[in-house]
Amino acid sequence: MPSTGAVAAAARLARRPRLVVVGTGWAGFRFVRDVLRSAYDVVVISPRDHFVFTPLLASTTIGSLEFRAIIEPVRIVGDLRFYEAEVTGVDPAEKTVRCVDSTRVFDNEEQSRSFTVPYDYLVLAAGAKSQTFGVPGVYEHAMFLKNIADARRIRQRIMHCLQRACQPQVGDEERRELLSFVVVGGGPTSVEFAAELYDFVTEDVGRWYGRDIVDSIRITVLEAGRTILGSFDRALSEYTVRLFQARDIEVRTGVAVKQVTKRGVELGDGSVVPSNLVVWSTGVAAIPLIQSLNWEHDKRSGRLLVSEYLSVPSAPGVYALGDCAVNEKEPLPCTAQVAQQQAKYLARVFNQYNSVGGPPVGSQETTKTKPFVYRHLASLAYVGGWKSIADSKVVKSSGLGTWLFWRSAYWTTNVSIRNKILIPMYWFKAWLFGRDISTF
Amino acid sequence: MPSTGAVAAAARLARRPRLVVVGTGWAGFRFVRDVLRSAYDVVVISPRDHFVFTPLLASTTIGSLEFRAIIEPVRIVGDLRFYEAEVTGVDPAEKTVRCVDSTRVFDNEEQSRSFTVPYDYLVLAAGAKSQTFGVPGVYEHAMFLKNIADARRIRQRIMHCLQRACQPQVGDEERRELLSFVVVGGGPTSVEFAAELYDFVTEDVGRWYGRDIVDSIRITVLEAGRTILGSFDRALSEYTVRLFQARDIEVRTGVAVKQVTKRGVELGDGSVVPSNLVVWSTGVAAIPLIQSLNWEHDKRSGRLLVSEYLSVPSAPGVYALGDCAVNEKEPLPCTAQVAQQQAKYLARVFNQYNSVGGPPVGSQETTKTKPFVYRHLASLAYVGGWKSIADSKVVKSSGLGTWLFWRSAYWTTNVSIRNKILIPMYWFKAWLFGRDISTF
Repeated sequence: MPSTGAVAAAARLARRPRLVVVGTGWAGFRFVRDVLRSAYDVVVISPRDHFVFTPLLASTTIGSLEFRAIIEPVRIVGDLRFYEAEVTGVDPAEKTVRCVDSTRVFDNEEQSRSFTVPYDYLVLAAGAKSQTFGVPGVYEHAMFLKNIADARRIRQRIMHCLQRACQPQVGDEERRELLSFVVVGGGPTSVEFAAELYDFVTEDVGRWYGRDIVDSIRITVLEAGRTILGSFDRALSEYTVRLFQARDIEVRTGVAVKQVTKRGVELGDGSVVPSNLVVWSTGVAAIPLIQSLNWEHDKRSGRLLVSEYLSVPSAPGVYALGDCAVNEKEPLPCTAQVAQQQAKYLARVFNQYNSVGGPPVGSQETTKTKPFVYRHLASLAYVGGWKSIADSKVVKSSGLGTWLFWRSAYWTTNVSIRNKILIPMYWFKAWLFGRDISTF
Repeated sequence: MPSTGAVAAAARLARRPRLVVVGTGWAGFRFVRDVLRSAYDVVVISPRDHFVFTPLLASTTIGSLEFRAIIEPVRIVGDLRFYEAEVTGVDPAEKTVRCVDSTRVFDNEEQSRSFTVPYDYLVLAAGAKSQTFGVPGVYEHAMFLKNIADARRIRQRIMHCLQRACQPQVGDEERRELLSFVVVGGGPTSVEFAAELYDFVTEDVGRWYGRDIVDSIRITVLEAGRTILGSFDRALSEYTVRLFQARDIEVRTGVAVKQVTKRGVELGDGSVVPSNLVVWSTGVAAIPLIQSLNWEHDKRSGRLLVSEYLSVPSAPGVYALGDCAVNEKEPLPCTAQVAQQQAKYLARVFNQYNSVGGPPVGSQETTKTKPFVYRHLASLAYVGGWKSIADSKVVKSSGLGTWLFWRSAYWTTNVSIRNKILIPMYWFKAWLFGRDISTF
């Protein structure tokens, strides 16, 4: 017969509040790792069954790192249930979320796909989608760089372009198109992709495809604004532009993109930059789920408005953080750093209230809870050729030393031991043997 | 001014005979590695830009090894040109091969895709396709296991089946289907896949998906013949059957498959084995290119008939080896071992004649060339749980010792230094941290 203590523990377990977390990015994954899962009945819902360590995503597009070295399966976090699904709606009266299964056992949709999950607390960390500004052809012909499937598509396209440029029946005009790579947007993702591509071209392409191919490759960065890396210190931005110019990476600022076609990018002045690979990274926009929610949004960005406690004011028990949320009084950029600090904060709030069945629903303004405060540490970007830039309040730096800092900065709690072993191993492998160019 | 010697060398280089090699499998890849590429103008044509180390292919379907650890890009072999294309025909009068580009820069086919490559010598090592015996539904619903794309599809399907079995809206009947994995065919590939799947289920699935899922998983091997591993010694075949039975892997022999559907395998007696993943491996058949060639074929298998020198009798300068060729007088099985020994032999023949512009065209029956002789070393298969079987003339063995032999047997010249480092690293990683279950 179980002891009274065991019975009480079982009963407490049985009425753990149901905590539904939507999303497995920087905000969602950090939150479920940090929250006391013994005190809450945690259900994670996301179409993506893994966390992506996005600062290294650009490295996987050309094989400096393999895809699996920068991801963590959600299930690595024990004591939770994971449903692979897209959340399509929230019913705050019933306290349920509507989901559409996104497993792809079969390609078609003849299986049952809809289901509903009840919640006591709902944490929305669903992220954002790539901003296209309504430019025609972006979805059809450009490639984004937000997740592993994107990186894999880019890697395949690069290899197919290089190979097709070697095929005997291909003419000079098409070859120029095939070997012209265009990046739209001048933020850190774009710069890092251009930098990694440059590394690959200079370190590997010559050996495998011959000098002729290397000499014909053109990399172009198109930015609508006045400068690239606009969020960085001006000296660092200018340093990067000079570095890119010295490498024949063309940086064109103040350029409007009219449309993207299969054969290149058409600019505002009617001219065309020919290209068969256009990588598009011009910031983020609200996803359909967030747009559809019947709560207050930020007019400009479409993000959900949240209080300084990250709660959604008109929806008791609902929280939002990361790229899908913003506090009007102190708007923060859509970065991993912000998402992660918010997740840590919110997990602390939940853990604080774990013995009383969760935070008070309806108002967090109790004396026990302090509002969220963001501490900006540093902005980092890899600029190619063993060089990085770092921008913090204290230090603005660039070069090889910063590169070493950039690499070691990733030795944080976000990388599992497994990947702490894998990542340097891949770096060493790429350095020693070159990057793999096979396609499949 | 260049010396007379240099001029002579340049002139000799200019009239190097053109040697076209079709295929990048065991036969083609070994041949181009071994042939003196300074003496021949080597062009390799294949839809696959890499060699696959097939004995470890089953390991990649469940993530014991990553895909890139068992492949070598063709371009790793220097001093050759590589065209990524399907060869669709040979014109022996003009001495040309017709090709269709298989790079996929765009999905559609609006680009120029056809081209022709002239040859002085043609080495056909194009391999074979999976044998389906005309059973309906195999191409549509079953998965083959011949290359990396196949292995990747199987890995994705397994993970999606496991995840969908955890989704809340899925009923018991569908869950049984999702967790029933069927292998058709009882050869080494089938046995190794079933064994690797068993390892994954027992070592990883419980930890990530829970005990319930593990207990519901069924693995079934269907074989039309009297026994599985029919090409092995009878004692080893029986050992494997006993091993599989002890593990609840169902082995059904003497079973005819009537058709494969989305929901399972229909047998000759009308009963259905429900399954959402059917792996089909029942031997090989001739590919369309080989069937279409206007030379003599083996009536039963459709393979090209070759002489004991691996030359195609009615086509001067044309050789065929590996799975696409057979010598009627001494038919050999379609194995990596045969293909590789043939490739080594043929490269030696070409190297022998390198100073006189290649082997005599039309007849190899000169005193200088000895016919090809096959030496059978051993048949190996992994049977799961750290156990392998080995069948050679001298030794018939099984168990852990054989497993160690199985692993070390792969430390041959077929694995690059890069992969000699990667493969044990992945084995160690899988042993220490488990296999990765993320899908993308």
